[in-house]
Amino acid sequence: MDKLAQKLSDRGIVGYLKILLRGAGQVMFQCNAWTGLFFIAGIFWGAYQSGTPAVAWGAMLGLMVSTATGYILNLPSDEGQQGLWGFNGILVGCAFPTFLGNTLWMWLSLTLCSALTVWVREGLNKVMKHWKINSFTFPFVASTWLFLLAARAMYGLDPTHLTTPTLPDHLSTGGYLYVEQATVYWLRGVSQVFLIDSWVTGMLFIIGLLLASRWAALWAAIGSALAIVVASALSTSGYDIAHGLYGFSAVLTAIALATVFYRPGWRSALWAMLGIVITVISQAAMNVMLDPLGLATLTAPFCITTWAFLLPMFKFDSSTPDHSHWSPSLKQHLR
Amino acid sequence: MDKLAQKLSDRGIVGYLKILLRGAGQVMFQCNAWTGLFFIAGIFWGAYQSGTPAVAWGAMLGLMVSTATGYILNLPSDEGQQGLWGFNGILVGCAFPTFLGNTLWMWLSLTLCSALTVWVREGLNKVMKHWKINSFTFPFVASTWLFLLAARAMYGLDPTHLTTPTLPDHLSTGGYLYVEQATVYWLRGVSQVFLIDSWVTGMLFIIGLLLASRWAALWAAIGSALAIVVASALSTSGYDIAHGLYGFSAVLTAIALATVFYRPGWRSALWAMLGIVITVISQAAMNVMLDPLGLATLTAPFCITTWAFLLPMFKFDSSTPDHSHWSPSLKQHLR
Amino acid sequence: MDKLAQKLSDRGIVGYLKILLRGAGQVMFQCNAWTGLFFIAGIFWGAYQSGTPAVAWGAMLGLMVSTATGYILNLPSDEGQQGLWGFNGILVGCAFPTFLGNTLWMWLSLTLCSALTVWVREGLNKVMKHWKINSFTFPFVASTWLFLLAARAMYGLDPTHLTTPTLPDHLSTGGYLYVEQATVYWLRGVSQVFLIDSWVTGMLFIIGLLLASRWAALWAAIGSALAIVVASALSTSGYDIAHGLYGFSAVLTAIALATVFYRPGWRSALWAMLGIVITVISQAAMNVMLDPLGLATLTAPFCITTWAFLLPMFKFDSSTPDHSHWSPSLKQHLR
Repeated sequence: MDKLAQKLSDRGIVGYLKILLRGAGQVMFQCNAWTGLFFIAGIFWGAYQSGTPAVAWGAMLGLMVSTATGYILNLPSDEGQQGLWGFNGILVGCAFPTFLGNTLWMWLSLTLCSALTVWVREGLNKVMKHWKINSFTFPFVASTWLFLLAARAMYGLDPTHLTTPTLPDHLSTGGYLYVEQATVYWLRGVSQVFLIDSWVTGMLFIIGLLLASRWAALWAAIGSALAIVVASALSTSGYDIAHGLYGFSAVLTAIALATVFYRPGWRSALWAMLGIVITVISQAAMNVMLDPLGLATLTAPFCITTWAFLLPMFKFDSSTPDHSHWSPSLKQHLR
Repeated sequence: MDKLAQKLSDRGIVGYLKILLRGAGQVMFQCNAWTGLFFIAGIFWGAYQSGTPAVAWGAMLGLMVSTATGYILNLPSDEGQQGLWGFNGILVGCAFPTFLGNTLWMWLSLTLCSALTVWVREGLNKVMKHWKINSFTFPFVASTWLFLLAARAMYGLDPTHLTTPTLPDHLSTGGYLYVEQATVYWLRGVSQVFLIDSWVTGMLFIIGLLLASRWAALWAAIGSALAIVVASALSTSGYDIAHGLYGFSAVLTAIALATVFYRPGWRSALWAMLGIVITVISQAAMNVMLDPLGLATLTAPFCITTWAFLLPMFKFDSSTPDHSHWSPSLKQHLR
Repeated sequence: MDKLAQKLSDRGIVGYLKILLRGAGQVMFQCNAWTGLFFIAGIFWGAYQSGTPAVAWGAMLGLMVSTATGYILNLPSDEGQQGLWGFNGILVGCAFPTFLGNTLWMWLSLTLCSALTVWVREGLNKVMKHWKINSFTFPFVASTWLFLLAARAMYGLDPTHLTTPTLPDHLSTGGYLYVEQATVYWLRGVSQVFLIDSWVTGMLFIIGLLLASRWAALWAAIGSALAIVVASALSTSGYDIAHGLYGFSAVLTAIALATVFYRPGWRSALWAMLGIVITVISQAAMNVMLDPLGLATLTAPFCITTWAFLLPMFKFDSSTPDHSHWSPSLKQHLR
């Protein structure tokens, strides 16, 4: 039994709790229960702060249901111990109360959708393994899109917080931003990874990252900052920038390219910065593309961009790239 | 020569006729000429009943053209003998007169599109074999979408029966259904697999299934019934439920998951029921998604959901899953 | 060192120049510097003729940036020597000034997008190699779509020349065409491969093709002509036919199917003609599909149709099909 496996082998309530916490941490690629604890603290702070506690409790429900689904389906347990069953579910749990009205059917749908992400992930990863990439948070994106779209055709679900479908229009003016507020925008970009709009939450997330990896924390910060710079330079919607809506996908792209799938170094740093720029373009493009459906992009801009930057399998050092998994130990186990 | 191959080896007119009839049967995964005969009877009844005989004759033309295309392209003959060239074509033949005006160009397009499904299927199956799944009726869906979309940009085709493109709206009220009509809705759900809106046709289809497989007939019935329950519980459009428009994809998902790709049993039964629920959600979601194009989902909700439930390759018994084909003999042949 | 490799092995300025010219030629699958020279001449003629010189200079910039990107990323040099890094970039360079206003940000975006096509191509080809097909010009299509969509959400980019998003409508009347102008329409169909609307350019392109391959020139001509016949028979928009907008994808499909991936012969000729017909249908379908986004199809109809016709891997002669690359020498090198 190797070191990581041993570290993950807690038993009993503590063991299960850690698995849940790691599930929260894995949203930003961190197999670390403490990181997850700070993430959950951030979610609760932000959700209660903005008067939508359902978001926090939805996150808890989604995390638990998806993790339990992994056990029920009897999936390989080392994936579960690393929290890889739960990270899509916790995002589903944040998204449903954010976009749908707080009804019984919303909670039932949230439960079903969280579970669904687990086997959608299993299926997508089987397909993507041929191309040596991973499905990331796309099971969350695809499953949530399904339910959010369906909500418009089902009176039992209340799509009240979704934006109204419109045909895309030009942006008639550049956005205006208060420069002195830049730190707030920047931290909100980090907090929006979990659909939370709060600079305090963003700080808690960065602290959580610090506990697992200084590189990840650094690049989350760079990702959000550079996204603001690019989005402002190209004069996208000031509202979106101010509320971190150009930052969250960039944060994930940054962590993935600069610290997870490539080792930190000047080549991977340049690659990640290029990835952040393209993520901002993708975010704008997908916002427009989904206008006629009144649908949010969720983390799709991160997924699409990071796939585009991983698929060529460029070698930045002596190691041969295989991006189908981000856990070193799992790579060995699954080989 | 194994048993199935022998059974399929009729020669002459009778042989060709059986191949055509099996093509009809394969829409619901049944390699059985009698099943196909009842399906075709159902199509003719429904088409004449609703005053659109062109639907029935279109079905015949599509079936014959696509089967002939298989011969012309010299594809592996055991596929053809099982009716696997014809099942996409017969659906094209039902769809074109349903959605397009009865003009000469419609019939020429129907002919071309039926043929197209055969090599689109060949190509898609080659791709999907890597993932151990099959293209199902998606060649019909993709090819028909292409022509229905094109019809709006071609004065020679008459897209008169397509719905008007609109931006998605919320459902402002739950649908009202007459409970005493439930049996009619339920059987219409089965008949809509071939785009027919008739409870008599639904009954003929179930009888046809019974001749090939009691399990398939049972699960077709369960699929349509459960779809009504779920769609009603979530208060989707009453009109759509009453006309079987939430049932047809669910029927196919049910047969596929509970009887074709997994052997009947309690695990596969649960899996299929979950699949039916998600198919209803997918149906609602795709209805909304295609609103701006005024396009029908066809059987896409079935394809997408069933793929999502097969791709993880879960083992429900001792057999190792390979869902790239549903004919036991073909699996051996192609190995 | 084989013959082709030797032919490509020029050094110094002349070598680099030839590589750039081949990049232009590869848009129509020709690894020939003279062909590329005539293509570029055609682009300049058409761009200056229509008062949009930025299109020509954009093409030059895109070609150079994408070719340089291949060197910087240290990709396999035999691909580069054949001009395979540059052909997506030159198309990006034609598209940006065509659809976006002439601002500084347009030029910076053009530069970034041209570079992006190089690694998107690398990634897509790695995926598609499993299916024995090639990404063709789809890296150009996908990357350009991304930026054109984003332009609507970014005040810094000016989407002024994009069409206004609308819901699809029926064509209320057949288009009227002047028969005596047929030659002009026909040559414009060829020139639109590079988004140029000029019969002189079309003639220069055909001469360029003649220098590399008589078969390619012949089939470019057939592709554009047959597209006009099919589009007119089905009464699509007269304006689109007159300006070659139904021709350009058909030209590429024709060259690909009749001369590049299959050797010229009666089977491949029939297959290519069928491909041209389906390309016209795809063009109409994608025009409608992209209406709500106000986006141009670019060469997507060609890509989709040609994939559909190559994926089944039909054998038309004794050679076993592998359509993942179109250069005979590269096929050997890469094996």
